[in-house]
Amino acid sequence: MHKIITIGREFGSGGRELGKRLSEALGIAYYDNEIITGIAQKSGLAEEYVKSIVERKPITYPITTGRTLNTSIGHQFELNMMIYEQQNNVIKELASKSDCVMIGRCSDYILREHKPFNIFVYANMDSRLQRCRLKAPEGEHLSDTEMKSMILSVDKYRARYYKSITGQEWGEKHNYNLCINTSNVVVKDVVLPISKLLKAVLYENK
Amino acid sequence: MHKIITIGREFGSGGRELGKRLSEALGIAYYDNEIITGIAQKSGLAEEYVKSIVERKPITYPITTGRTLNTSIGHQFELNMMIYEQQNNVIKELASKSDCVMIGRCSDYILREHKPFNIFVYANMDSRLQRCRLKAPEGEHLSDTEMKSMILSVDKYRARYYKSITGQEWGEKHNYNLCINTSNVVVKDVVLPISKLLKAVLYENK
Repeated sequence: MHKIITIGREFGSGGRELGKRLSEALGIAYYDNEIITGIAQKSGLAEEYVKSIVERKPITYPITTGRTLNTSIGHQFELNMMIYEQQNNVIKELASKSDCVMIGRCSDYILREHKPFNIFVYANMDSRLQRCRLKAPEGEHLSDTEMKSMILSVDKYRARYYKSITGQEWGEKHNYNLCINTSNVVVKDVVLPISKLLKAVLYENK
Repeated sequence: MHKIITIGREFGSGGRELGKRLSEALGIAYYDNEIITGIAQKSGLAEEYVKSIVERKPITYPITTGRTLNTSIGHQFELNMMIYEQQNNVIKELASKSDCVMIGRCSDYILREHKPFNIFVYANMDSRLQRCRLKAPEGEHLSDTEMKSMILSVDKYRARYYKSITGQEWGEKHNYNLCINTSNVVVKDVVLPISKLLKAVLYENK
């Protein structure tokens, strides 16, 4: 079975950057938006719509790419189930290919039989606001209050989505092998030692 | 200000071993029972009694070494306050001497102005039972149920003691820089990479 590292992360904590850099340091695959793309391809739903469900990105229409779907509110449950089923399939297929780092999408739970190394990345609000400012798209001018509210709202959605699929608490440390607080931490400075820790735990002593 | 690493730990998680080995890898001081000895010396209370309050070790009498104290239940609060005051003094004095690793005793909170690097070590119950069995004193024959109950009871006491002094939740990840799950981990195998992580965060980039 391949070695899998999953990264759960609070919004703005730099978890995605950490995952990307870790995959490079370890020379293994990295899956992030590929998961969304895979779900969209398998379900026939538009990528933006899949993102809106899996990551709470704003919903944009059309929600399908090529087939007609009943989009009534009553139909939402069925769409969600289809997305979850395909999320499950895509994540398992990617994990079966090679060692890899996977970003979020309940991959820690979906791949639990692989005994992945699960990392959770978090930070205090000041650090997260600062990271979000640095990465904000051109022309975005949110106040600190608006940005804080957006951060908390994304996290709340992630926690609810995670709970609904896994039955577990998102970010509860016992569900992870390592929890890293990135407040006042430059992510690239900690990649090398964390990659060595992963090597020690996943490779050298097995 | 000296670099301080504090280790909070669930009972049986191997946190103390990790702390000791990290201090050796980093070549810095290590304070564990020295804190209890210091409190006992400053307060005139017996070491075993101080342990019974700070760590929930069984109480043995006499509780003082050389002076008479009112030991009525009503007096307990005053004794606890004296212990806490001296715990505060001892921990601050030790931290003022040199870089060091400190095991528990609310050192993360007491030294918050030093901005210590706070680690919390935890593990699942199976791992903790196994570690406790390996470290059990000669002649101790607790059943798994008895040992589990002892582990949970020590943790419950630690959480309550920590909360009463700090007002914070013991083990809540946002109070720590790093939370390490030692289930199925051989502690000595992860010491080197974690010491490198500490060097990167505490020394090299400051």
